[in-house]
Amino acid sequence: MRGAMIYAPGDIRFETLDDPKILHPTDAVIRTAVTCVCGSDLWPYRGLEPTESPHPMGHEYVGFVEEVGSEVTAVRPGQFVIGSFATSDSTCANCRNGFPSNCLHREFMSTCQAEYVRIPNAQGTLVAADGVPGKELWPSLLAVSDVMGTGWWAAEAAEVKPGGTAVVVGDGAVGLCAVIAAKEMGAERIIAMSRHASRQKLAREFGATDIVAERGEEGVARIKELTGGIGADSVLECVGTGESMQQALHSARPGGNVGFVGVPHDVAVDGQELFFSHVGLRGGPAPVRRYLPDLIDRVQSKRINPGKVFDLTLPLEQVAEGYRAMDERRAIKTLLTP
Amino acid sequence: MRGAMIYAPGDIRFETLDDPKILHPTDAVIRTAVTCVCGSDLWPYRGLEPTESPHPMGHEYVGFVEEVGSEVTAVRPGQFVIGSFATSDSTCANCRNGFPSNCLHREFMSTCQAEYVRIPNAQGTLVAADGVPGKELWPSLLAVSDVMGTGWWAAEAAEVKPGGTAVVVGDGAVGLCAVIAAKEMGAERIIAMSRHASRQKLAREFGATDIVAERGEEGVARIKELTGGIGADSVLECVGTGESMQQALHSARPGGNVGFVGVPHDVAVDGQELFFSHVGLRGGPAPVRRYLPDLIDRVQSKRINPGKVFDLTLPLEQVAEGYRAMDERRAIKTLLTP
Repeated sequence: MRGAMIYAPGDIRFETLDDPKILHPTDAVIRTAVTCVCGSDLWPYRGLEPTESPHPMGHEYVGFVEEVGSEVTAVRPGQFVIGSFATSDSTCANCRNGFPSNCLHREFMSTCQAEYVRIPNAQGTLVAADGVPGKELWPSLLAVSDVMGTGWWAAEAAEVKPGGTAVVVGDGAVGLCAVIAAKEMGAERIIAMSRHASRQKLAREFGATDIVAERGEEGVARIKELTGGIGADSVLECVGTGESMQQALHSARPGGNVGFVGVPHDVAVDGQELFFSHVGLRGGPAPVRRYLPDLIDRVQSKRINPGKVFDLTLPLEQVAEGYRAMDERRAIKTLLTP
Repeated sequence: MRGAMIYAPGDIRFETLDDPKILHPTDAVIRTAVTCVCGSDLWPYRGLEPTESPHPMGHEYVGFVEEVGSEVTAVRPGQFVIGSFATSDSTCANCRNGFPSNCLHREFMSTCQAEYVRIPNAQGTLVAADGVPGKELWPSLLAVSDVMGTGWWAAEAAEVKPGGTAVVVGDGAVGLCAVIAAKEMGAERIIAMSRHASRQKLAREFGATDIVAERGEEGVARIKELTGGIGADSVLECVGTGESMQQALHSARPGGNVGFVGVPHDVAVDGQELFFSHVGLRGGPAPVRRYLPDLIDRVQSKRINPGKVFDLTLPLEQVAEGYRAMDERRAIKTLLTP
């Protein structure tokens, strides 16, 4: 089969690779329906995370089950399935506590920009769609496997409540999906922080009631103006830099909540500042598996359409151009079709 | 009147001071029934917080209303009242959101180790007891004004739930009151981290089911052993040092919660570590005013007895010895009687 490999920052190649096989009785192999490039893939692409040796890329996937190991009974060959970027066995203590992305047997997916993918922990990880969804739904179902699930988690971790105010920091695919989540959870006012016209437009389409283009202390001042002087009930931090975390913490009202879902890079939170703010802080890799049945249903019933975050579609073999377009901010998110 | 002043680290004096007066129509003046020395008073006493110039000390109080300003109708002269160490107007947005200790008109109390005390924001701050409580209840009612309320907040911020597991880091008065709170909130297992026999004993009396004397990584290993290998649902951090915060964060299970109520001194939380732990973190000055009616009732109905944390009682004029005894860990907490 063929798939993407990274060799060094900026160097993505599409190559012939070994076909994935069942290695453990808990594995499945799927034929990729669609896959994509994630904002977090840009960290190694930009050299902000090291690439020690060449390795495959990609952690988002939907596809058709090809083969299952002897212990996999939850899905069967031919089914259209969605899974999380973090695999989970669904039986360990952390899974039972609602944190499958912290499963004691977790493996992070990392080989999904390819024609076929081996899924470890398939029994706990994969969820079958209702029948074979029409192709027009594949992008949204793909989004559910990571960015939509992560936006949902941002809203849950930030304790978005009906009638509340929510600020979304970051206008990438996750931030935009976080707007959808805040809307679905009933936030009355949803303030998207964005400086890009096309992203502002999509944010409004997804449910944002206000746009704030300012950043830093100016951005915080605007948020305060819009929230009765005290800040927002919920802030959804979808970037992962020190600057964005400060933006988020300062935008929350006393006793409000920040959900942070961008993998933090060089972020330290000052204990005393957090203390006097009364702000609650929770983040982490999204427990996507817990949301899958609900989010798949919201997509298949056409209640939400997170697939709109894909504004560039390329054949899988042009994966390198998909990275380039996102790196240069010509695309929010690149869909790849095998 | 007479009251305590700090002049420099280790230098507490009991002096004749001006009688407090009503300065604003929202003030009240109370005659102190009992007051005490707080663990946080030891920060300046030990020189870990600067003392720029001599100033009064003390923020815990119960007493009899002497006089009220023209806008104070909630309490009247002669009543026995309890208030929070942080005053609040009960009407601002932060008060209405349940965070009176972040009131937009908050003033921290700081003159309570004295015979009379002026209470700003008296209308929103003071709560009258049911009649004049017997003297045997005064220590517990005094505890409610800070350490018991703060322990309660630690448990609330750590989201202690019926049947859950709770770890209390810190065996000072707040930590011991946090054990009471965890017990009242229905925690099934309450692990107190303590190395002092007398405090271990009181922790058990208050409801601790297990004692862990180890600290650091050894302490974390013991907590993991006691919690199925994953850590506790709730961790109540009642110290405020970098070491105790690490202890707390590492003792929580994935997706668990840390409530931190010790004012942090040189504490920085690593964003990436917090991220991958899925632990929720919330702290701050306790919203004591919100708890007062409930906690006063629990004391007056003799359901809880947090006054037991006072293991030394001195006349107010011996306040300096009260500090010394706590500094040298000869006392958990010193009660002062005018």
